[in-house]
Amino acid sequence: MNWKPNRSSHLSLHIQITDWIKERIQNGEWTVGTKLPAQRRLAENFEVNRSTVVAALDELTADGLIETRPGGGTYISNDSWNILLKNAQPDWDKHITESIHEPNYHTIQLINEYEQDQDIIRLGTGELSPSLLPADAIEQALQSITLQPRDMGYSEPKGNKKLRSVLSQHLKNRNIHASPDNILIVSGALQALQLISLGLLEQGSVVFQESPSYLNSVHPFQSAGMQVISFQKNEEMQTKLKNYSSRKQSIFYTVPTLHNPTGSTMTLGERRHLLETCHSLHIPIIEDDVYHDLLFSHDTLPALKALDESGQVLYIGSLSKTLSPGLRIGWIVGPQPVINRLADIKMQTDYGSSAISQQIAAHWLQSQLYEKHLHVLRSELEKRAQFMHTLLLKYFSDAASWHKPTGGFYIWLRFNKPIVNKSLFLRLIKQQILINPGYIYNPHDQHHIRLSYAYADLAEMEKGLVILKQALR
Amino acid sequence: MNWKPNRSSHLSLHIQITDWIKERIQNGEWTVGTKLPAQRRLAENFEVNRSTVVAALDELTADGLIETRPGGGTYISNDSWNILLKNAQPDWDKHITESIHEPNYHTIQLINEYEQDQDIIRLGTGELSPSLLPADAIEQALQSITLQPRDMGYSEPKGNKKLRSVLSQHLKNRNIHASPDNILIVSGALQALQLISLGLLEQGSVVFQESPSYLNSVHPFQSAGMQVISFQKNEEMQTKLKNYSSRKQSIFYTVPTLHNPTGSTMTLGERRHLLETCHSLHIPIIEDDVYHDLLFSHDTLPALKALDESGQVLYIGSLSKTLSPGLRIGWIVGPQPVINRLADIKMQTDYGSSAISQQIAAHWLQSQLYEKHLHVLRSELEKRAQFMHTLLLKYFSDAASWHKPTGGFYIWLRFNKPIVNKSLFLRLIKQQILINPGYIYNPHDQHHIRLSYAYADLAEMEKGLVILKQALR
Repeated sequence: MNWKPNRSSHLSLHIQITDWIKERIQNGEWTVGTKLPAQRRLAENFEVNRSTVVAALDELTADGLIETRPGGGTYISNDSWNILLKNAQPDWDKHITESIHEPNYHTIQLINEYEQDQDIIRLGTGELSPSLLPADAIEQALQSITLQPRDMGYSEPKGNKKLRSVLSQHLKNRNIHASPDNILIVSGALQALQLISLGLLEQGSVVFQESPSYLNSVHPFQSAGMQVISFQKNEEMQTKLKNYSSRKQSIFYTVPTLHNPTGSTMTLGERRHLLETCHSLHIPIIEDDVYHDLLFSHDTLPALKALDESGQVLYIGSLSKTLSPGLRIGWIVGPQPVINRLADIKMQTDYGSSAISQQIAAHWLQSQLYEKHLHVLRSELEKRAQFMHTLLLKYFSDAASWHKPTGGFYIWLRFNKPIVNKSLFLRLIKQQILINPGYIYNPHDQHHIRLSYAYADLAEMEKGLVILKQALR
Repeated sequence: MNWKPNRSSHLSLHIQITDWIKERIQNGEWTVGTKLPAQRRLAENFEVNRSTVVAALDELTADGLIETRPGGGTYISNDSWNILLKNAQPDWDKHITESIHEPNYHTIQLINEYEQDQDIIRLGTGELSPSLLPADAIEQALQSITLQPRDMGYSEPKGNKKLRSVLSQHLKNRNIHASPDNILIVSGALQALQLISLGLLEQGSVVFQESPSYLNSVHPFQSAGMQVISFQKNEEMQTKLKNYSSRKQSIFYTVPTLHNPTGSTMTLGERRHLLETCHSLHIPIIEDDVYHDLLFSHDTLPALKALDESGQVLYIGSLSKTLSPGLRIGWIVGPQPVINRLADIKMQTDYGSSAISQQIAAHWLQSQLYEKHLHVLRSELEKRAQFMHTLLLKYFSDAASWHKPTGGFYIWLRFNKPIVNKSLFLRLIKQQILINPGYIYNPHDQHHIRLSYAYADLAEMEKGLVILKQALR
C-alpha cells in the first residue's frame, strides 16, 4: 500500500480513495472476502484524516462493495464484482471528445434544438415556412407516382437515371450542358460538400471561401482536416491564392448568386475574374447555386459553370430551398471522372439517396409542377422581403444598415455598433426569439444578424423585430 | 537552358521536351513572339537527337503554340497563352488519388456497375429481388399518408418523432427498451457505421471484427484512419482484445444473427461470452442486426442489446433488407449522450434523412403492413433457400460444402480447392454471371463464394450455378 491520494488533484481525497479501492477490486487484487485494514491504519497509510477514510468507506458500503461483518471488520462483499461490472460503462465521453468530427458550434446546436419549439419566433432560419411548402401538392402528386419494383432497390451509384435525365434537361435553363453521366444525385448540398471533401482533397488541402461564409457554420472540410482560408470581399485574390495554393491542393467555395448569409450576387465581371484567377492557378471551384431559383427578377446572370470551358467548376444544386428540405435531394455536376469518384464514395457512405424522394423530384421537375410552384413562391417571398424591409426602416433605420433583397431568404443586417454576441443570442432565446448571429458565419463578426423573411409570418416578424430592438437597448 | 530531359523517366524524351517548353510559355518565361533557338542548338542543349527535337516542335506546332514565320525561324505564337489557358484543367486525377477516402475495391466497383445490367444473373447480391419488394403495396400506402407541412421541412436532429416513437414500440419485440430519445434515424446501416466512425472514435482506433466480415467490403472505418483487426471464429479473444485495446480506443463490430457473409448465428453462450469479454475491457460493441427479421424460425435468440446492462452496445437496425433498400431508412439505439453526438454529426453530414421515407417507414411499422409483409417474405425466402440448397446438392456436393440456411439471404459456399479468385470473377462476368467472391470479405480467402438466393429467380439460379460449375472445370 504505497499509494497516496494526490493533494493537488481536482478530485477530493475521499473520492480518490474510493476510486483506488474500486480499482483494487476490479483488477482482482482485493478479491471477495478480503478483509480491509483498520480505519486508523488506512488513514496513516494514505496520510489523511480518519474522517476522510470514513467518508470513503461509507460510500463503498452504500454502493454495496464492502460490508461490515458481525464480530467486526470490513470485507469486500460477495456482490462487489457484479456491482462493479454492471456499472462499468464504456467511457463514452472520452470517445466523443477524442473522435474525429468537430461538434457543431454550441450556438448552432441550440438553434437546431430550439427550432423544434413550435412557439419560438424563428427570425433567421434558412428554411421555408411550412405555409410556403407545397405539402398538399406533394401529397397529391404521390398518387400519380408509379413505383417500379426495380426503383425500390438499391440505386445506381450516380442516382436514379430518370431523375438525372430530367436534371440534364432542367440544367439547360441555366445554360449548363451536362449529360446524365455528369450528374450525381446527393442528399442535399451539404452532402455534396462532404463527398468533395472526402473524395477530391488531400489532407491539409486549402479551401478558399468568401467571408462571411455558410461554410463556417458547418464543418465538412474542417472535420476532414482541411485548412479554410477566408477572403474579404474585394481583397486582392491573385497573390493570396497563389501563396496558399502553391503549397497544397486547393479548392474555392463560392455562392455567386444570392450568397448565404449576405444575399449578394456577383456581377458578371466578378464571375469572370474569379474564374480566370482560379483557372490560371489550376484551382477548382465549387459553385453552390442552391438559391438561384429564388431570384425575384428574371434578369439572371450566368452560372460560373455555364462560363466554364475547362471543367474546373463543380456545380451544386438542390431542391431544399425551393421545394422541400424534407426530400433531401440535391445534385453535383462535374467532369465524368470526378462524378464517378464521388458516386463511388456516396455508395460507401449511404448507398444512395431515398428512391421515393428521387421519384418525387423527377416528377416535379419534369411536369411543370416545379416551375409553377416557383412562380408562386417567388412572389410570396418578394412580398415578405418587402414587408421586412419596411419593418427595418421603421425600427432600425438609425441603428443598422442593410440591402434590400433581390431574392432568396436573407437580409444581412449590419448594426452600427458591435452588439451581436452570444449573450444577446441567449437573452433572445429566453424571450422566445431565435436569431442567426453573424458570428456563426465569421467568428470575428459582432455586427451582423442574418435575418430571414422565409420562415416567420408577418405578425411574428414584427413582434420579433420589436423584441430584438428592445433587447438591444 | 540548363535543363535536360530525364532518360530514366517513363515519359518519352520528346514529350518531356514538349512539356518543358509549355511550362516556359505558361509561367511567362517565353512570352508571345519569343524566337526559339535553332533545332540543332536545341538538340545540343537537350543532348538528344535532332529528330527528337523535331518531334517535339511538330507537336507544339500542331497545338498552335509555336509557328514558323515567313523568312524562317520558329516563334511562340500569338495565341499560345489562350490555348494553354483553355486546356489547363485542374489535375482531377491527382485530386482523386491523393484524397482521403479509399476507393471501393475494383471488384465491388464492377459489381456496382454490372448490377445495372438487367440481363446479368446476380448470384450474390445482398438485396431482395424486385419481385419480393412490395412496390405495389408501398405505392398504395402512399395514398394513406398525410403530409403535414412541418414534416416536409428539415427534420429534428434525431429524426421524425413519430417514427422514433413507433420504433421504440417495435424494438420491444426484440426485448430492447429504448425511449425515442435513445434512437437516431439514419439513411441505412452503412451510414450508422460512418457516423460512429467519425463521432465516437479517435484517429487510429482499433475496430475488431469477425473474419470474414462485411466491413471488409466497405470502408467506413478504414477511410477515417482506423485500424481493423480481424478475429477468426473461436480464436481466443480475451488476450488479443486486451493487447490491442490497451493501446488505443477500440470498438467491436459484430453481426450476431444471420451473419453477413456466412449466414451463421451466434449461440446464447457466444453472445454472453462476447458481451462479458468486451465489458471487462470497456470495449463498446456495434451490433448490426439488419437480418434478424428474416430468421425462418420463430425461435430467436436475444439481441446483444437486450442483454446489455451497461449501455455498451450500439444497436443498428434497418428496413433495407426487409422492406426496401430504396427507402434508405435505418436506426441506431444507444445511450443518450452517444445518440445526441451522432445526431449532431448527422446534421452536419446531410441534415437528416428523407422526410417521406420516414413517413412511409412509420406507417409500415405502425400498421401491421410490415409484419404481414415479413410473414410472406420469410416463407418466400425459405422456399428459395431450399431450392438453392437442392441445386447445390445436385451440382456441387463433391466440390464444396455449406450450411443449410436458417434465414436471411446467403449461403457461404466453401470450395474444397482455393479456386475463387479475380480471374474467375471476371470470366463469369463475361458469361453474364455476377458473383460475390469471398475475397471481398477476407482478402486472403480463395475458397468461398457468397451465394444469395434473394435476388435471382429459380431458373436463373440453376442456370447461374451450372455456368459456375462449368467455369470451374
